[in-house]
Amino acid sequence: MLLGFRRLLSYRNSVLLCRNIKSDNTSRCAVLDSALSAFRLICGEDGVSLGEAVREQHGKDESVHRCCPPDVVVFPHCVEEVSALAKVCHNHNIPIIPFGTGTGVEGGVNASKGGVCFSLRNMDQVLHLHQEDFDVTVEPGVTRKALNAYLRDTGLWFPVDPGADASLCGMAATSASGTNAVRYGTMRENVLNLEVVLVDGTIIHTAGKGRRARKTSAGYNLTNLFVGSEGTLGIITKATLRLYGIPESMVSAVCSFPSIQAAVKSTVQILQAGVPVARIEFLDDVMIDACNRFSCLSYPVTPTLFLEFHGSGQSLKDQVNTTADITQSNGGSDFQWAQEAETRNRLWKARHDAWYAAQALRPGCKAYATDVCVPLSRLPQIIVETKEDLIENKLTGPIAGHVGDGNFHCLMVVDPNNPEELHRMYLFTDRLARRALAMDGTCTGEHGVGLGKRALLCEEVGPMVIQIMQGLKATLDPNNLMNPGKILQ
Amino acid sequence: MLLGFRRLLSYRNSVLLCRNIKSDNTSRCAVLDSALSAFRLICGEDGVSLGEAVREQHGKDESVHRCCPPDVVVFPHCVEEVSALAKVCHNHNIPIIPFGTGTGVEGGVNASKGGVCFSLRNMDQVLHLHQEDFDVTVEPGVTRKALNAYLRDTGLWFPVDPGADASLCGMAATSASGTNAVRYGTMRENVLNLEVVLVDGTIIHTAGKGRRARKTSAGYNLTNLFVGSEGTLGIITKATLRLYGIPESMVSAVCSFPSIQAAVKSTVQILQAGVPVARIEFLDDVMIDACNRFSCLSYPVTPTLFLEFHGSGQSLKDQVNTTADITQSNGGSDFQWAQEAETRNRLWKARHDAWYAAQALRPGCKAYATDVCVPLSRLPQIIVETKEDLIENKLTGPIAGHVGDGNFHCLMVVDPNNPEELHRMYLFTDRLARRALAMDGTCTGEHGVGLGKRALLCEEVGPMVIQIMQGLKATLDPNNLMNPGKILQ
Repeated sequence: MLLGFRRLLSYRNSVLLCRNIKSDNTSRCAVLDSALSAFRLICGEDGVSLGEAVREQHGKDESVHRCCPPDVVVFPHCVEEVSALAKVCHNHNIPIIPFGTGTGVEGGVNASKGGVCFSLRNMDQVLHLHQEDFDVTVEPGVTRKALNAYLRDTGLWFPVDPGADASLCGMAATSASGTNAVRYGTMRENVLNLEVVLVDGTIIHTAGKGRRARKTSAGYNLTNLFVGSEGTLGIITKATLRLYGIPESMVSAVCSFPSIQAAVKSTVQILQAGVPVARIEFLDDVMIDACNRFSCLSYPVTPTLFLEFHGSGQSLKDQVNTTADITQSNGGSDFQWAQEAETRNRLWKARHDAWYAAQALRPGCKAYATDVCVPLSRLPQIIVETKEDLIENKLTGPIAGHVGDGNFHCLMVVDPNNPEELHRMYLFTDRLARRALAMDGTCTGEHGVGLGKRALLCEEVGPMVIQIMQGLKATLDPNNLMNPGKILQ
Repeated sequence: MLLGFRRLLSYRNSVLLCRNIKSDNTSRCAVLDSALSAFRLICGEDGVSLGEAVREQHGKDESVHRCCPPDVVVFPHCVEEVSALAKVCHNHNIPIIPFGTGTGVEGGVNASKGGVCFSLRNMDQVLHLHQEDFDVTVEPGVTRKALNAYLRDTGLWFPVDPGADASLCGMAATSASGTNAVRYGTMRENVLNLEVVLVDGTIIHTAGKGRRARKTSAGYNLTNLFVGSEGTLGIITKATLRLYGIPESMVSAVCSFPSIQAAVKSTVQILQAGVPVARIEFLDDVMIDACNRFSCLSYPVTPTLFLEFHGSGQSLKDQVNTTADITQSNGGSDFQWAQEAETRNRLWKARHDAWYAAQALRPGCKAYATDVCVPLSRLPQIIVETKEDLIENKLTGPIAGHVGDGNFHCLMVVDPNNPEELHRMYLFTDRLARRALAMDGTCTGEHGVGLGKRALLCEEVGPMVIQIMQGLKATLDPNNLMNPGKILQ
């Protein structure tokens, strides 16, 4: 708690100094009191926490980055409170860190420069469902699973699925995607409008208030400027999302391959054939082995594709048959497939449990996911080189990929208390990202830049583009108070 | 030509004046000579035109806005020339107007503040086709038909189809879409990377040089900031685009409905059923009547849907059957469909000829398209009200819509020499746009803002968002030289 006070003090000092105002202890305490009591006036006593446990809990995500607790955590109940809190922070020159579910993987919520964490969990209402228009507006506390549970009886669903039960506005902030992106797109394609609170408390709607058109050419695309901005341009307080009809039926399938090349070649041919595959996931031999052990399965320990098809009766059979022909022609194993929910889940269990299976490879260790994306044709080479790198450097990193997008993850299983091993992992993830950059790819397909990939971002886009990004940031957040130190140095 | 010189003079004067440098005739001529001779040094004699006919030809698009010829038209051959030309304009404080094919419909290329038109027609190479990665990079002179002709033997195609044979970089600049958007998305979803020349001649790549990943979360989405920026932020000199496998087969279908409601309800149910319809186009009774006359057809003169399905054998049949069931349950006529290319073209002739059919309604008149987009459920009401408005105001405006996106056009057929009728049309198009805004929609779904919808954009997004757009513009183009007076006032 003292730390909190000290930090608040230092911000205020800097402000007072740069304003050439003489500051003494009395005024300092007055300042602290004014900031905190303003927060309490806005959110109530329960809406403001300086407790160490709460701050620790809000100081990190699922990434390897060490916890940096914020100085205060506030729990607003509505956009007006978010706006009022932002004004107070703005006037006191205090950093703002938006917080959804903390399921990010690049340190996006770590308060590396201190400040106030805005936990948006109390704003958890699903608003304005328009079934005939295939859109819905949600508050930032609504997670993707909560939304799909809400939609269950409507015949509609929201398909973007990053794995974790993340908040939808958090998914917008990090431009999340996941397994369904190959068919349904990422958050970039599925956000129609955002309500955003800017650093000075101004409330805007990126496409105009209440706008829900499925497409627009009206002015600069602010919606997609805020999607993926990782809380550095404003606080997303509402998202209007595209919805889709729940497919009449689904088929899941699994197929083993003699080589990574064969699995990727099949993927390319499936897409070339125009099969509207909904999910096409790659697991390498190490990951399959881990899944076999963890879930008592007996898949051949070779590169494997897990597929899912959405559609209606006969067209589904067509999709499956076309895919089976393609995989066979590439030396794939007999094509196991299932249509019943229960059997489908059994078939996909390995993929669903991949994260835990990876962790189980080294009891007492922790799994951290890293993510790159390359053009499809480069996947075999980068995966082969990456596996060699893992072996050479004695690292455990099973590979799972959204192969239809050229996007894959290494699930690094490391001992968090072994600095030397952590250092080897850092060096490895940098090499992996640079390998992707050398193959016309990106250092992050869906996890974002956060703290860990800022230097890589500079290598990826070059100094001029970084300068433009800094210019855009300065336009919206001139004092660098919005989640400072993320994306840009 | 004199006009050209006078305009150049005035820019230079303003620069000289604001720099408090005494300017006399000698220095003026020196300035003009320096600008024009610099252009000639860069593009050669043939690469610079002050000819009235050429300037007139580059001073307007397909819109109703009167021709505003630029002062000079330059024809660069490569990005280095574009960059060098931009530097000269920047140093002389002369506006820059990028020009693709001039097929825009909102006055985006009109040189309303004079300046230099950059015609990019000489940069017409298809570069870097990566078949296995489903991407290609094109220069700004490449049109969508030229690209698809180039791709013909690869089994791939680029589906975004605004109707006109526009240049692909121009389509990126206006965020174009068209008939296939309901399945394949708009330019926003299909541009992976852009090479852009900024106002001072700097060359950037929005996603980093050579990057082709199908998705990325690396930093702010500059690609989608430039898509739809209508030449106001920079000159797009290369676009890397997503490609798709050519569907194994296609089915076209036509269905007449007793009412607009029935046609729209069918559309909603088709999407709800998850039918991956490739095109679903609405023509109102007036448009059908015009098509019947123009193309000697005999469709019932009622609201009609033209559909196209892409897929393989049985799944296609499924799509068609599901759709036929839905349309019948909504009182649709017997469902005419065809799979053979020739019959398909005959079936779609009415839709393909709509533009000419509309023109033919009033010989000697000209057709101008206006465009709005609303949530699907609001389509019947807005179309009914719009048709009443047309009748009340004695305007001819058959309606054709990309109904799957809630996007439709009135093809206004007016006498360009009748100021009173033109005035009635202006008032009507403003009312139409405001009607869309009142229904949570946008004043433009795919045509852009250009000159004609700047005031409507303010109403659509509100003053704060306009201020942010102005801030972004100022960051990239501080002297407002890039296509000034477009999008923003």
